[in-house]
Amino acid sequence: MSALKKTTRPPSAEEETRDNKQGMNMKKVLDLSSGDSHNAGVKPITFVRQVIAGCLYPSLLQSDALPPDARLRAQMLLRHFDGGSIGSYTDSCGSMYVRNTIAESISLRDGGVPSSPEQVFITVETQRGLMVMMRLLCQSEGVSAVMIPDPAPHTLARLLERMGVVPVPYRLQEQCGWSVERAELNRAIQASRGRCSPRAIYMSNPGDPTGHVQSRESIEDVIRFAADEELFLLVNEVYQNTVFADGSEFVSYKRVLAEMGAPYSERVQLASLHSLSNGIMGECGFRTGYMELVNVDQAVMLYTEVLLTGDLCPPVIGQIALDVMADPPHPGEPSYTLYTQEVASRLMTLKCNVSRAVEVINDLPGFSCLSVQSGIFLYPHLTLPHSAVTHAQSVGLLYSRRLLEDQGVCVGFSEDHTHSQSCCHFRLCVLMPSDELEEALRRLRCFHYQFLKEYCEITISAPQQSN
Amino acid sequence: MSALKKTTRPPSAEEETRDNKQGMNMKKVLDLSSGDSHNAGVKPITFVRQVIAGCLYPSLLQSDALPPDARLRAQMLLRHFDGGSIGSYTDSCGSMYVRNTIAESISLRDGGVPSSPEQVFITVETQRGLMVMMRLLCQSEGVSAVMIPDPAPHTLARLLERMGVVPVPYRLQEQCGWSVERAELNRAIQASRGRCSPRAIYMSNPGDPTGHVQSRESIEDVIRFAADEELFLLVNEVYQNTVFADGSEFVSYKRVLAEMGAPYSERVQLASLHSLSNGIMGECGFRTGYMELVNVDQAVMLYTEVLLTGDLCPPVIGQIALDVMADPPHPGEPSYTLYTQEVASRLMTLKCNVSRAVEVINDLPGFSCLSVQSGIFLYPHLTLPHSAVTHAQSVGLLYSRRLLEDQGVCVGFSEDHTHSQSCCHFRLCVLMPSDELEEALRRLRCFHYQFLKEYCEITISAPQQSN
Repeated sequence: MSALKKTTRPPSAEEETRDNKQGMNMKKVLDLSSGDSHNAGVKPITFVRQVIAGCLYPSLLQSDALPPDARLRAQMLLRHFDGGSIGSYTDSCGSMYVRNTIAESISLRDGGVPSSPEQVFITVETQRGLMVMMRLLCQSEGVSAVMIPDPAPHTLARLLERMGVVPVPYRLQEQCGWSVERAELNRAIQASRGRCSPRAIYMSNPGDPTGHVQSRESIEDVIRFAADEELFLLVNEVYQNTVFADGSEFVSYKRVLAEMGAPYSERVQLASLHSLSNGIMGECGFRTGYMELVNVDQAVMLYTEVLLTGDLCPPVIGQIALDVMADPPHPGEPSYTLYTQEVASRLMTLKCNVSRAVEVINDLPGFSCLSVQSGIFLYPHLTLPHSAVTHAQSVGLLYSRRLLEDQGVCVGFSEDHTHSQSCCHFRLCVLMPSDELEEALRRLRCFHYQFLKEYCEITISAPQQSN
Repeated sequence: MSALKKTTRPPSAEEETRDNKQGMNMKKVLDLSSGDSHNAGVKPITFVRQVIAGCLYPSLLQSDALPPDARLRAQMLLRHFDGGSIGSYTDSCGSMYVRNTIAESISLRDGGVPSSPEQVFITVETQRGLMVMMRLLCQSEGVSAVMIPDPAPHTLARLLERMGVVPVPYRLQEQCGWSVERAELNRAIQASRGRCSPRAIYMSNPGDPTGHVQSRESIEDVIRFAADEELFLLVNEVYQNTVFADGSEFVSYKRVLAEMGAPYSERVQLASLHSLSNGIMGECGFRTGYMELVNVDQAVMLYTEVLLTGDLCPPVIGQIALDVMADPPHPGEPSYTLYTQEVASRLMTLKCNVSRAVEVINDLPGFSCLSVQSGIFLYPHLTLPHSAVTHAQSVGLLYSRRLLEDQGVCVGFSEDHTHSQSCCHFRLCVLMPSDELEEALRRLRCFHYQFLKEYCEITISAPQQSN
């Protein structure tokens, strides 16, 4: 309503100037709402693209257009695809050769905890894996539910709704750096009693959108909770290779589970999800991910396979990229240096961007932003004076819409229903090259002071404000 | 049971010889059951692979490893992907640029009947498109059903089951070359009354697995039936570019619908499915297809888009291949000759293979095989003496299992429930290079006489029988 009113009143002289400036010099929209690396300007990892190009067009394997280790890898992969072509179908759960590469990399990651290709299911993105698990877990009588974090990855609620699964939210504690607390898990499951039956608990570690990395102790707590409540553990670990904060380290749920020993290591069922889209690869367009199932009954594994046969097979090009992600160039190989540099530079950019963005955002009146240890998002908190609320039912919607309209910056938001209406969180992807981030922050700052003046009747002279 | 008995009795001297021969000289399994071109030995279309390689690894665009028109196409495509990378997401229904290329090609195919990119939805294979349409059509009260042909594409029954949709089969008439008859459609829908509510009729044209190409008159009949019964038309047209019989021509349902004029052209709702996996491209591994919706309400189109957002976006590499399929090299461009030769040679091989396989199969006692006009399958009919049935509950299963065990030839089958138990049809893909087909036919013939002798106590001296 208020937005409608605003567009019908005559523009101020200031607005006219701004609109004219925009008209003359149309700004490129900066999309900070999604985690689409390549759209944000991140370059692909060269080796992955080289290997796939070689597999696609094998004539390249006879030329020096590709480095020798990329050619070798492509030849090796082609030998394992039917008819020597990546145009053939693979098994419904992916090529056994690639599943084996992934299993080996998981075992290496987890300090030797065994993994087998039969446990690894390659899927059309993690979404499909999650859908299949939801279907498996939630087909019994009664109202099936899954415990999910609040905040959660922004596509999760829609997926649950689509699968007819009731969400049972547990709150992550911002004041403790977005940690998971056992007391809150207990509260949430108690609150669900009589209403629905939780079958699983969904964890996002490293946290999306919080950037929090769980400690081993925290993971142990969650595993004990899952054991006590007989919940299946659905763990989104897509940012496992994107931990950049000093002193933070990713430890997988599977490893902790194995190292806790019996009865947990034998009893707690787990699905761990990983993907090409997120983190280091950022190959969203390839639409491929995988899940590893742990302690899952053989018959259920077979049924998982049956459910996946509906897709016939996951995209083969994505499978090749997974093979490279799981087994990147080794020291001494021609592509090792470039690959290592590209990965390191990506992490360094993320780390610098996070630090810079947190600094700028915390300087803006009303904003508060925790630093993050991993992933690609900041999740700052905005509290506005109550007067702002009179202008809009949703402060997050009003703010983000005006930010897009005025400055061409697109951000995700979620209202904070536990507090007053004038509180919300924003989801900002900071994956882009540093100069683009600077531009986004400049626009955000400029917009923010304008917004305060306009809606909250607060005028604070912004340092270095310019437009 | 009989198979169990067979493995427990001592092998005959002949069997021992055969088993020893196999042990010494293990045969490559020839898979005629699926339509996986590249697995069958068909080479990919060069231009498609070149364009994708260029998009994947743009350094190739600076070299002469790729022909100039492939480089130009790749550059053009890259300009239309976010961040200039095929690693970015596209819209949920695919890149608007590619959807536009497809719409233009549809209009060209249909003699100018207009198409627009908004009508074209790119999906993870035709399966996803079909699932979305089933969901849209079958979510109302009561038992939703879809009329489907018998025989139908072999993945269709499973998809309906998965979607909770009841199949209402209408029989295709083998004695009329697998044509669709209006009387049979009437009979089938009448028989469904009171049991379920058919919302749609599924057609496969060119027919999978029959290879039949519908005439314009036959399509008009079906459209009238759909209009009379208020059924949505779901048309699988994936073999539209694989018609090879002299005098046969593919005409799209959409074109016929448009040319029938009002009221049909304004009222009958249609989804036409096409895919990379089938026909000329044979790129099964890319997992991409599309559907065009005709006469569908704007709100339903929007809802289709909403349902597809769950997939985030279809595989981007498949989208590039669709762009090339829809708009192949033009006369005068460097890749035109090779592209044209590759497509022509593929069709010629199919035509020769069909003719040769029909000849050989019709020579086998008990077999009868209609010639086909299109597609990649033969669908021969086997009638065995009743004595064979005493050996197995399923003649098709027994025959195909022994054929695989003894000769390493894998075929699909379906029992003929309308006749006696000793009748069945086999689905044989004849897509492979001619020498491989010869080998498959040699093994089939050899096996067939052995089978007749063993199970039907019929001994006929086979001409040129050898093993």
